Amino acid sequence: MAGKLYGVGVGPGDPELLTLKAVRLIHECEVIAVPGKAPRESAAYKIAQSACPGIEAKELLGIHMPMTKDEAELSKNHEEGARLLENALKQGKDVAFLTLGDPCIYSTYLYLHQRILEKGHEAELVSGVPSFCAASARAGLGLVKGGEQLHVIPASYHTEEALKLPGTKILMKTGKRLGKVKEQLKDRKDRVIMVENCGMPGERIYYGISEMPDSAGYYTVLFVKEDEKA
Amino acid sequence: MAGKLYGVGVGPGDPELLTLKAVRLIHECEVIAVPGKAPRESAAYKIAQSACPGIEAKELLGIHMPMTKDEAELSKNHEEGARLLENALKQGKDVAFLTLGDPCIYSTYLYLHQRILEKGHEAELVSGVPSFCAASARAGLGLVKGGEQLHVIPASYHTEEALKLPGTKILMKTGKRLGKVKEQLKDRKDRVIMVENCGMPGERIYYGISEMPDSAGYYTVLFVKEDEKA
Repeated sequence: MAGKLYGVGVGPGDPELLTLKAVRLIHECEVIAVPGKAPRESAAYKIAQSACPGIEAKELLGIHMPMTKDEAELSKNHEEGARLLENALKQGKDVAFLTLGDPCIYSTYLYLHQRILEKGHEAELVSGVPSFCAASARAGLGLVKGGEQLHVIPASYHTEEALKLPGTKILMKTGKRLGKVKEQLKDRKDRVIMVENCGMPGERIYYGISEMPDSAGYYTVLFVKEDEKA
Repeated sequence: MAGKLYGVGVGPGDPELLTLKAVRLIHECEVIAVPGKAPRESAAYKIAQSACPGIEAKELLGIHMPMTKDEAELSKNHEEGARLLENALKQGKDVAFLTLGDPCIYSTYLYLHQRILEKGHEAELVSGVPSFCAASARAGLGLVKGGEQLHVIPASYHTEEALKLPGTKILMKTGKRLGKVKEQLKDRKDRVIMVENCGMPGERIYYGISEMPDSAGYYTVLFVKEDEKA
């Protein structure tokens, strides 16, 4: 019988934010898969390792999917990744593919999930705590109350328009474009809070744009809240 | 020494989706607090009880905060709730306040958190898996990829405008207004998927608006995705 693939969210960084289900599946699956050429160095693997001592003994599969805007290249990488996973499934092995945060939110796992289902295999999405929830908790910040809207915006795209939306805006992966985003926020009355490397080494929280640098790391989340009483 | 308050997200319903940290804190805290007049009947308590056998022996505090649009009434209830929590903290007891999903997203706990901090006590937000992540995973649905935006909209408010936003829309607590929302979606080409009672008894998933009833329960999440290949 063929194995089953699990897309397991390992949460935002703190190993204690893994779910009981994630821990169980990591222990039960014969094969652990993670994104990247050097699987043992990947953030998702290190988080899982802290929460699940002993996984070093398992078969480890690195799925190399470098970021690229070339559609053909991307498709080729996803197909190759799916082929590697399918290979393990066909041997009757269950596979836990580890992904940061939640697998439904901006994970490259989604592309593999789709392809594995299309190949006729079983695959399941296993929820994790999204990075923005943990960053918000670390900053002691509620995201939305009552009738407020919540907007999650990949900051490499149309931030200018998105900042005009009502409610709370979460700008993901602001990184190198932080200077530009600060400029867009300058004349607005929002509360702005930024969390860099949440739950990981080098974690830092900035309250207000005047504190923030013009460039930040990849794991940066920016919260823009409409002016309100604390 | 005064105790500390933890606002603990217990996730969306499946007890296996509690985090390791939530389980640890529930075991460590002397007092468990939950919203409602009948604390043992609350959804958050039942989820925690399944994941943490033995919590029945702990001191249990029901914080009654009925929904109302009367601001004065609301404020009075929050103050009364905060007073009950403070009472336990002053006795040196740590308190785990259990809340469905994630405490930063539409939880009534946020109001108490704020008040307890203002009273000079320690309080910490402990992330959980939001209900919409679990509902999305249950439906086998990715929420957002690459540069897509994600919008979380309380459906009792301006759905018409919100449905025009780019990317994926999540309509929360659609419940009684489902007929109206279906009407608004009728001439659009979105993929619409609805999950009722995710991970709880009576769970049901609907694919497409023609399948959906005109009214649904309180724990209903609706996903509206721009037309795309599966």
